[in-house]
Amino acid sequence: MKQRIALDMDEVIADIQPKFIQLYEREFGKRLTKEDLYGKKVYYFEGARYIREFLFEKGFFRDLPVIADSQEVVQELIQHYDVFITTAAMEFRNCFEDKYDWMHEFFPFINWKNIVFCGDKSIIRADYMIDDHASNLRSFQGKGLLFTASHNVDETEFTRLNNWLEVRDFFRAERAKN
Amino acid sequence: MKQRIALDMDEVIADIQPKFIQLYEREFGKRLTKEDLYGKKVYYFEGARYIREFLFEKGFFRDLPVIADSQEVVQELIQHYDVFITTAAMEFRNCFEDKYDWMHEFFPFINWKNIVFCGDKSIIRADYMIDDHASNLRSFQGKGLLFTASHNVDETEFTRLNNWLEVRDFFRAERAKN
Repeated sequence: MKQRIALDMDEVIADIQPKFIQLYEREFGKRLTKEDLYGKKVYYFEGARYIREFLFEKGFFRDLPVIADSQEVVQELIQHYDVFITTAAMEFRNCFEDKYDWMHEFFPFINWKNIVFCGDKSIIRADYMIDDHASNLRSFQGKGLLFTASHNVDETEFTRLNNWLEVRDFFRAERAKN
Repeated sequence: MKQRIALDMDEVIADIQPKFIQLYEREFGKRLTKEDLYGKKVYYFEGARYIREFLFEKGFFRDLPVIADSQEVVQELIQHYDVFITTAAMEFRNCFEDKYDWMHEFFPFINWKNIVFCGDKSIIRADYMIDDHASNLRSFQGKGLLFTASHNVDETEFTRLNNWLEVRDFFRAERAKN
């Protein structure tokens, strides 16, 4: 039986940040830089909490850019692993169809059987989890892998993967061990 | 930490069968009885396979009747367990909002964090799983409990619970052991 990888969506394969940076600029007239965002999410800035509400809008998740190299590397991974997309979607009723259609468009090689919309990710059983939230990895019983996002740059608890080429190399090294 | 129960939706808390019986009667002019349906689903009958396509329609899952006593017993269970609703929704793009709204209407005491839309249920980690499909229980690592539905009456592999009062009594007995 193949080992199983649980793969997060937002900030791992789908880039949510450009849209928030754009919204912040529209609302506050300032273009946030990479440095501004170290250790933060856009809606952590003073007065900007309400920007998070855009997550509840129809369409928000439908046109997010794909994170660089994720499509190619996931295609490599599915040769060797059962890859499940496990996304914390349940807070946002309006995101379901958008996320589903986005997956269908950009990751058509992921079967619908391997997509999971959840809330609390401690319900997930897998061998590896790739996620940008350390809290999701903390409740996970397999090997947790932290995918770098602006808000998690100070986390040191988990193996960090900075981009998809590092994901590819990590799993190539794992396979070489066996 | 509380033990965790993964609870299926269709044919466990949401009754999908009356709608299929109605559809069959409309299409074939015959009212199927309980006896007709032993060991079967409605769309297993000759020529009736296409009836399954109604599952893909918007609205299909929105107005299903609640299975008797499930609301009361789930309310008792959540006092003692972390109850997750784990439903194989991913085949049906149009069911997400319906299922979400149905849960909100009939099981408002289940937090959104505890709802999971999935495909292959082998991704679920829990201590107990209550499901009407033996195949879901087979890939489960905890204790599988088969909830009786017409199509599974011949299954003998798992502990069978015929109705929600039996679910209640099963878990009361489990707790009495500890």
